[in-house]
Amino acid sequence: MNQLEELRAVVRQFVTERGWDQHHNPKNLAIALSVEAAEVLEHFQWCSEAESFTLPPERRKAVADELSDVLMGVIRVADLLDIDLAEAFASKMVENRRKYPPEKVQGRAVKYTEL
Amino acid sequence: MNQLEELRAVVRQFVTERGWDQHHNPKNLAIALSVEAAEVLEHFQWCSEAESFTLPPERRKAVADELSDVLMGVIRVADLLDIDLAEAFASKMVENRRKYPPEKVQGRAVKYTEL
Amino acid sequence: MNQLEELRAVVRQFVTERGWDQHHNPKNLAIALSVEAAEVLEHFQWCSEAESFTLPPERRKAVADELSDVLMGVIRVADLLDIDLAEAFASKMVENRRKYPPEKVQGRAVKYTEL
Amino acid sequence: MNQLEELRAVVRQFVTERGWDQHHNPKNLAIALSVEAAEVLEHFQWCSEAESFTLPPERRKAVADELSDVLMGVIRVADLLDIDLAEAFASKMVENRRKYPPEKVQGRAVKYTEL
Repeated sequence: MNQLEELRAVVRQFVTERGWDQHHNPKNLAIALSVEAAEVLEHFQWCSEAESFTLPPERRKAVADELSDVLMGVIRVADLLDIDLAEAFASKMVENRRKYPPEKVQGRAVKYTEL
Repeated sequence: MNQLEELRAVVRQFVTERGWDQHHNPKNLAIALSVEAAEVLEHFQWCSEAESFTLPPERRKAVADELSDVLMGVIRVADLLDIDLAEAFASKMVENRRKYPPEKVQGRAVKYTEL
Repeated sequence: MNQLEELRAVVRQFVTERGWDQHHNPKNLAIALSVEAAEVLEHFQWCSEAESFTLPPERRKAVADELSDVLMGVIRVADLLDIDLAEAFASKMVENRRKYPPEKVQGRAVKYTEL
Repeated sequence: MNQLEELRAVVRQFVTERGWDQHHNPKNLAIALSVEAAEVLEHFQWCSEAESFTLPPERRKAVADELSDVLMGVIRVADLLDIDLAEAFASKMVENRRKYPPEKVQGRAVKYTEL
C-alpha cells in the first residue's frame, strides 16, 4: 500500500469513528477544501512575495496545519469519488509536460500563459 | 524516500526544467492553491449533495485533474517553506483526534461544531 | 453621486485614515476578496441546501457581516483599478442576457451549462 | 429605491426570466460567490503587487467582468436571505471603525494584525 493510500485509510477511519460519514459527500467536501485553501492563503494576505519565504515560526506552523487540512480534503474528495489520487496525479503530470514543453516556455515569463 | 517526497521531487523537477522557479514563492503558490481548489468546487456548484457522488465520467475525470492540481499546490507550498508534509499531516491528525473525541462528537450533528 | 460611488468614498476614507494605502494594491485586495468569500461559504459548509434558507439569527448576522466584507473588497479592487463598478455591472448584465437567452435556457437544468 | 435595491431587482428578474429560481439557494450561491472571487484572483496570480496596478486593457476588462459577477453573487445571497445589504454594510463599517481605531493602527504594519 502506497503512502497516499495509507493516508486515505487514516482519514477514513477518523471520519467513521466520529459518525461523520452521513455529512460527507463530494459536494460538501469540495466546499471544505476551498475553505481550507483560503485559510492557507489568509496567512500570505499582507506579506510581500519575498517575505513569504521567511514566515515567523508560529505562522509557518499554522500554514503547515492548514496545508494538512487541504491535503486531507483532497484525499477525502478523491476517496468519496473512488479516484486513485496517485494515478490521477501521474496522469496530470503527463498532460502538464505535454502542455508546457520546456523549450517553449523556457525564458518566457509564465505570467500570462498559464491563465 | 516516501511517496510524498517522491511527488515533491517530481514537481520540483517539472518547475526547474521550465525556468519557473523565479515566479514561485509561497505567496504566489498559495494563490494558485486557492484558485485550483475553486476549480474543484466549480464542478459541484449546481449539483445536489446526492448527485455529487455520481458525476458523469468526463466530469469525474475533470475533478480528478483539478484535485491533482490542488495536490501539486500543497506539495509545492510545503516544499518552498521546507515543511515536511507527511510529518505535518501526522501531527495535525493527532491534534484533530484530541480536538474531536469520538465519544463527544458521536451522534451529534457536526454541522455547527466545526465552524 | 450614486450609492456605489458613496460606498467607494466611505471605504477609501476608512483606509486612508488608518494609513493602510501602502499595503493596498489590486493583487493583495483580490486575495482579501477571495478569503472573505470563503468566510461566507464556511457558514454553509455543513448545512443542506434547504437549511441554508433558514439560518439561525446569529449565523445569518455573521453571513451579513461577511457579505459586507466581500462587498467592501469588490468596491476596493474596483477603486484601485479605476473601474466604474455600476457601469461594469450594467455591461456584464447585457452580456449575460445575450449569453443566456431565456427561451433557450428555460426549462433546461442550469447544472452543466454555466460551467 | 437605492442603487443596491435596484441591482437586486435587476438580478432577481434575470434569474426569474430563466427559470433558475429552483436552483438558487443561499448555499449554492455562496459556492458561486467563492468560485467567482477565485476567478478575480486568478488574474493576479503571476503578476507582482506593483504590476497589479497596471493591467493590460483586456485583462482589466476581464477583472471588471469578474468583479461584476462577485457583486451579483453578493446581491443574490443577500436577497435570498432577506438581508438589507446597504444596512449590513453600514453596520459592518461601524464595527470596523471601532475595531481598528486610527490612532491605534496608524503607522503600524497592518500585516499581522488583521489575521
